[in-house]
Amino acid sequence: MDFSTPPATTELLAKIRGFVEERLLPREATILGQGFAASDAELQALRAEVKALGLWGPQLPTSIGGLGLSLLDHGLVSELLGYSPLGHYVFGAQAPDAGNIEILEKYGTPAQRERWLDPLAAGEIRSCFSMTEPDNAGSNPTLLACAARRDGDEYVIDGRKWFTTAADGAAFAIVMAITDPEAEAHRRATMIIVPTDTPGFRLVRNISIFGHAGGGYDSHAEIAYEGCRVPATNRLGPEGAGFVIAQERLGPGRIHHCMRWLGICRRAFDMLCARANARELAPGERLADKQIIQAWVAECRARIDAARLLTLHAAWTIDNHGFQAARESVSLIKFHVAEVLGEVLDRAIQAHGALGITDDTVLSFFYTRERGARIYDGPDEVHKMVVARRILSGYRRRAAGGGK
Amino acid sequence: MDFSTPPATTELLAKIRGFVEERLLPREATILGQGFAASDAELQALRAEVKALGLWGPQLPTSIGGLGLSLLDHGLVSELLGYSPLGHYVFGAQAPDAGNIEILEKYGTPAQRERWLDPLAAGEIRSCFSMTEPDNAGSNPTLLACAARRDGDEYVIDGRKWFTTAADGAAFAIVMAITDPEAEAHRRATMIIVPTDTPGFRLVRNISIFGHAGGGYDSHAEIAYEGCRVPATNRLGPEGAGFVIAQERLGPGRIHHCMRWLGICRRAFDMLCARANARELAPGERLADKQIIQAWVAECRARIDAARLLTLHAAWTIDNHGFQAARESVSLIKFHVAEVLGEVLDRAIQAHGALGITDDTVLSFFYTRERGARIYDGPDEVHKMVVARRILSGYRRRAAGGGK
Amino acid sequence: MDFSTPPATTELLAKIRGFVEERLLPREATILGQGFAASDAELQALRAEVKALGLWGPQLPTSIGGLGLSLLDHGLVSELLGYSPLGHYVFGAQAPDAGNIEILEKYGTPAQRERWLDPLAAGEIRSCFSMTEPDNAGSNPTLLACAARRDGDEYVIDGRKWFTTAADGAAFAIVMAITDPEAEAHRRATMIIVPTDTPGFRLVRNISIFGHAGGGYDSHAEIAYEGCRVPATNRLGPEGAGFVIAQERLGPGRIHHCMRWLGICRRAFDMLCARANARELAPGERLADKQIIQAWVAECRARIDAARLLTLHAAWTIDNHGFQAARESVSLIKFHVAEVLGEVLDRAIQAHGALGITDDTVLSFFYTRERGARIYDGPDEVHKMVVARRILSGYRRRAAGGGK
Amino acid sequence: MDFSTPPATTELLAKIRGFVEERLLPREATILGQGFAASDAELQALRAEVKALGLWGPQLPTSIGGLGLSLLDHGLVSELLGYSPLGHYVFGAQAPDAGNIEILEKYGTPAQRERWLDPLAAGEIRSCFSMTEPDNAGSNPTLLACAARRDGDEYVIDGRKWFTTAADGAAFAIVMAITDPEAEAHRRATMIIVPTDTPGFRLVRNISIFGHAGGGYDSHAEIAYEGCRVPATNRLGPEGAGFVIAQERLGPGRIHHCMRWLGICRRAFDMLCARANARELAPGERLADKQIIQAWVAECRARIDAARLLTLHAAWTIDNHGFQAARESVSLIKFHVAEVLGEVLDRAIQAHGALGITDDTVLSFFYTRERGARIYDGPDEVHKMVVARRILSGYRRRAAGGGK
Repeated sequence: MDFSTPPATTELLAKIRGFVEERLLPREATILGQGFAASDAELQALRAEVKALGLWGPQLPTSIGGLGLSLLDHGLVSELLGYSPLGHYVFGAQAPDAGNIEILEKYGTPAQRERWLDPLAAGEIRSCFSMTEPDNAGSNPTLLACAARRDGDEYVIDGRKWFTTAADGAAFAIVMAITDPEAEAHRRATMIIVPTDTPGFRLVRNISIFGHAGGGYDSHAEIAYEGCRVPATNRLGPEGAGFVIAQERLGPGRIHHCMRWLGICRRAFDMLCARANARELAPGERLADKQIIQAWVAECRARIDAARLLTLHAAWTIDNHGFQAARESVSLIKFHVAEVLGEVLDRAIQAHGALGITDDTVLSFFYTRERGARIYDGPDEVHKMVVARRILSGYRRRAAGGGK
Repeated sequence: MDFSTPPATTELLAKIRGFVEERLLPREATILGQGFAASDAELQALRAEVKALGLWGPQLPTSIGGLGLSLLDHGLVSELLGYSPLGHYVFGAQAPDAGNIEILEKYGTPAQRERWLDPLAAGEIRSCFSMTEPDNAGSNPTLLACAARRDGDEYVIDGRKWFTTAADGAAFAIVMAITDPEAEAHRRATMIIVPTDTPGFRLVRNISIFGHAGGGYDSHAEIAYEGCRVPATNRLGPEGAGFVIAQERLGPGRIHHCMRWLGICRRAFDMLCARANARELAPGERLADKQIIQAWVAECRARIDAARLLTLHAAWTIDNHGFQAARESVSLIKFHVAEVLGEVLDRAIQAHGALGITDDTVLSFFYTRERGARIYDGPDEVHKMVVARRILSGYRRRAAGGGK
Repeated sequence: MDFSTPPATTELLAKIRGFVEERLLPREATILGQGFAASDAELQALRAEVKALGLWGPQLPTSIGGLGLSLLDHGLVSELLGYSPLGHYVFGAQAPDAGNIEILEKYGTPAQRERWLDPLAAGEIRSCFSMTEPDNAGSNPTLLACAARRDGDEYVIDGRKWFTTAADGAAFAIVMAITDPEAEAHRRATMIIVPTDTPGFRLVRNISIFGHAGGGYDSHAEIAYEGCRVPATNRLGPEGAGFVIAQERLGPGRIHHCMRWLGICRRAFDMLCARANARELAPGERLADKQIIQAWVAECRARIDAARLLTLHAAWTIDNHGFQAARESVSLIKFHVAEVLGEVLDRAIQAHGALGITDDTVLSFFYTRERGARIYDGPDEVHKMVVARRILSGYRRRAAGGGK
Repeated sequence: MDFSTPPATTELLAKIRGFVEERLLPREATILGQGFAASDAELQALRAEVKALGLWGPQLPTSIGGLGLSLLDHGLVSELLGYSPLGHYVFGAQAPDAGNIEILEKYGTPAQRERWLDPLAAGEIRSCFSMTEPDNAGSNPTLLACAARRDGDEYVIDGRKWFTTAADGAAFAIVMAITDPEAEAHRRATMIIVPTDTPGFRLVRNISIFGHAGGGYDSHAEIAYEGCRVPATNRLGPEGAGFVIAQERLGPGRIHHCMRWLGICRRAFDMLCARANARELAPGERLADKQIIQAWVAECRARIDAARLLTLHAAWTIDNHGFQAARESVSLIKFHVAEVLGEVLDRAIQAHGALGITDDTVLSFFYTRERGARIYDGPDEVHKMVVARRILSGYRRRAAGGGK
């Protein structure tokens, strides 16, 4: 076992960290205050700087202009980018585009790649991923209702989606729709690329979340697909392969999410410590001297560090033994890191007192934007159930004679 | 011991409950959506209905137009009103006016009563209470910096306050300012009434909290007092009595807060159960059938009920034995009920999945607006410390020979 | 609502508290050190004192020599007795005899009453209750395997039980056995009185629990019923009524348990505070000055007080509205108070450091003896499930049109 | 980063795991039932097998007959040995001998090594470490009272110690005693070797812990040093170096402890899963099908895995960068792993129902024996405080200009 980071990675990480601290943090409050949409010019300028430094697209293959990092290294980068809500966007590593790029890269036809993948990878357009439905439990794919009917050379899509992140301003959506309701549960759905200017694609609203409907990249839309017609050539991957592709998309995506959350944890922890050191309770007595704050510092440090190693281990397993070998780990980090994130943010806020609930610090942004961490991609309760069943059946299999 | 509610109270509670359910809940989403300020006409109409029904001012003495309830009975009313974010406001029982009325009632001169108390009690004007300062820990009164200098027949106030709730649109503020920095710690400050149109009273901003600066009644202002002059006759109570009065104001206020929080708990619990019953996970399987949801239901029910009895007991103690006898209880409920509130809201949201973080239900409103429950009126950590010291010194006193 | 205790009860409680503090606490360490069996003479002498003071059998009807208290008042007594592990035994209120007396009192024939109830109520003999089976989940009555076959005027009992508390030295057992395996689930079992000297009643072992097999009253036996024959007249209540009777036995029993646990909480809390006050960490600095200990003190105080009111409320409900009205409450307190007990004991031990895990204080006794609180009478997880289903179906019923 | 285990280590671990499973587990219940002392012959025979297999002394340098493993590799071994309470003892890696060997190896004179180290390393004698005192908080070294007065060529030791683990039957104790009360706090104490047959060394009692005083290796003694004279040549290391040596002893010891606890976690987790799979609640429904059990399985798995990586990382840091670089990590694992251990054991017991609190499984043994994990070597609360102060002062130093 070797917990060291190779010099090349260390050097890359130092550059990225430097950029985040020097170029992003100073503008963060302003950009978050006015919103991503209103800050577009400034964000594009920052992206240009990142490209000029050769740091663009840490998760992209080199073939499409990225750094071609391993999942482990990308995880380390993602942690640094997560330190600021601007990080992933400015480095071209933001969800949902990152996941869409992955599946376009793997399943896209040459025409699809040219039209959608290339400008997306270059940050010239944005995209969205339209899977979750308001009336059906996301955790049960057989309950999906949005349907795509084949009509000659076209698909006609009807249905309603919500929490289609960043649809507002996106050039296209990748839609998950039922193409064969009679097939067995996991073969019913297909992925289809739908340009957002297609008639029948209607952005109903940006959903207001904790009082904030947002806009542009920073939004989650409800979308109505109303007799929405696209050419059959817009199908991404084989018919019926929707769930398989979605699953592949989610796997590495969880590493990214978890490392991003750990970046947020690090930010919140830094702020917790800075606040504890700065806040005077009485002459000569700082918050840092109070034992309860000290316990929070110690407990947060231990939980963050442990969760971080668990996530890096999962990334390493995927890199070295494939996703299948890491399935258990990937489920574990999803709920475990989300829980740690919630605890750390809550304590950082509490240590800031009234200031912690205001928008004078970034903590309030994280607190509301990341409450969904325990919900999206399947609520934690479902992940626990799924991974436990896998673990328990492993024990039964071995008890029945299998050996380890 | 007798846990029953007398028939007269039962009848009153039924009326109030009916009004909340039939008149407030149906309009709640709209009013919260457009904000208190924009909904002023509608809110005043609802207030008129409440007055017509003889239900106005449950916490007010009958002498100034209220119901003259005991603290226990008012607690029960407050629980019902807390069920909707509109409740207290429409019934004339909203903070910070309720607390200001109490101290004006007790300490106000005839002129002060006529000018400020009467219209305030009638709901014709609003007020605010200006104590917390941005740069000083609220838990330590000796750190207060805002000062009122006597100059002839006037006080000249200089300083900065924040989290002055509902200052936007208020007719006057009651300001806590240092009048004698040399006095012993708890005799330094004085309460002074400052009409908000006084020159030198400047509302710097409504503080943005979790992305929402609000406005009108639903806001928390930062206020600059800049050479702000008011007549000495605006002093409320004796000079140096600021802390004593603040303490008296906070005591019953905690009962109100806690019972309001318990009303929110009840709302969230109702929503948790309704969601569990309604949400289908698969044909024939509802969320209510899942054991983890069942555990949440059971645990929330137990914690809410227990916290409720603890709070009612504290109210009863004040009613029957005075505030001094209830000091320990009042500290206990502050942090205990706030903790229960946090848990119940979190679980209700989690059970709603993605819906829970949207503004399509009232849960998101409560989640952000009430995060402060563990912070305002002193963070929970301070309350625990204070009450524990009291308990522990009681043990020492008895061990030293005192008996119980 | 009235939280006061009537003078007569207050006086009784003072007497009992006095006896516990003055007569029991001084001997507790010695008696627990040598065990209940070896301390029999001393315990009987203490019982005689209690009888002489007119305090015997707080839970017994006056008709059989007890105080005839309401469940609420008995709850208050039980809390005081629980302060010492000797309390219930010395006052004739110990499980499982107390529960057996209740059902003998309700269902016993005159002959049964004369032979078993009277000496049991007087403390002249002991009894046990034989229901739990090692191989079957206690939470599912249909899995009971021990069977009683009718053979002429006799029942022949075969099966195995465990956790038959206090069987060692008991005069008789009340056994729960299947008499009609074809009946619907809750009508299959019957209660039968089995003198422990009946051939075929074999005490296999006193089960070693956390390293301690105990003996006499303080033991939990595994019992083999091997062709064990008793006259049919030993049947307690009607055939098939076993579950109904067991349920009635458990209901008030839970109030007793919970109040006893709250007595233990009070003891542990007193010890936590005494330790915090006494332990010096450095010259002039006591454990009581540490903020984490203070937080424990505050949190324990709030949780104990809240759980206590919840339990008293359940007792009051049974007293005033019958057991059916209190079913939900009685389930809630079972797991809620057990949880509070676990927390309070754990913190009291932690505050005592190494001393806390030794037998130099009574905490270690409670820690191991009461770990079962979360398990016996059905594990907490089952109680949560059961009560939640009841609550959730209540919501469905009301939603379907029913009203409250 | 590389999370793989090298083939040689893998092979060694497989051998040790095989021995634990095949040779130790089958005898565990019997040996624990009769106690270490009564099982001495059998334990020595098992040790002989271990030696014959070349597996003796994983933590010992090869120079004194051990395997000379790195701390990381020894950690992995310790995890396997911790799976059974017999593991460390049978492999010659048991506390407190392991720690004593370390300091004798580093500080022992040739004569000390010959007389005490060699037979100790070979498992021919046992030893104990006498530091903790009953009346003084172990967390504050300045409060130590046991003193060693120099008298010619001898030290005369007077004082009282407790929790001197395994003193019963030990050949010698290493005693921490104050030799210069005037020195600065951390230079006051000295380590002295005291053969247990020295006059004035009196084993007062084996302390009863959770009802079990134990005996032989499995005991914790109270020791009175009463004018106990030993030659000055029995001093271990320089005078005044007691705390430095104790600190060095504790550092790697924490890795051992934590990995042993993780071995216990693994055992408890295996038992939790086996029980869940085996226990039928109703025909066709196992405990493994219940969602709460599934949540426990998932949460325990995540926490164990994360805590394990945190501990291995700390071991790797010591191996590669020295103890000083790992100080923070070593403090973090102490309380973090102890907390995880407590949770996992508690849930494993709860899942076993009544069986879980009996001695029919090894869980009850772990539950009582390892409750001290959160207390010994300094209570968790102290560790949190210490590590937080270090972290917070690091932030202050960097903020003051220092760079990271």
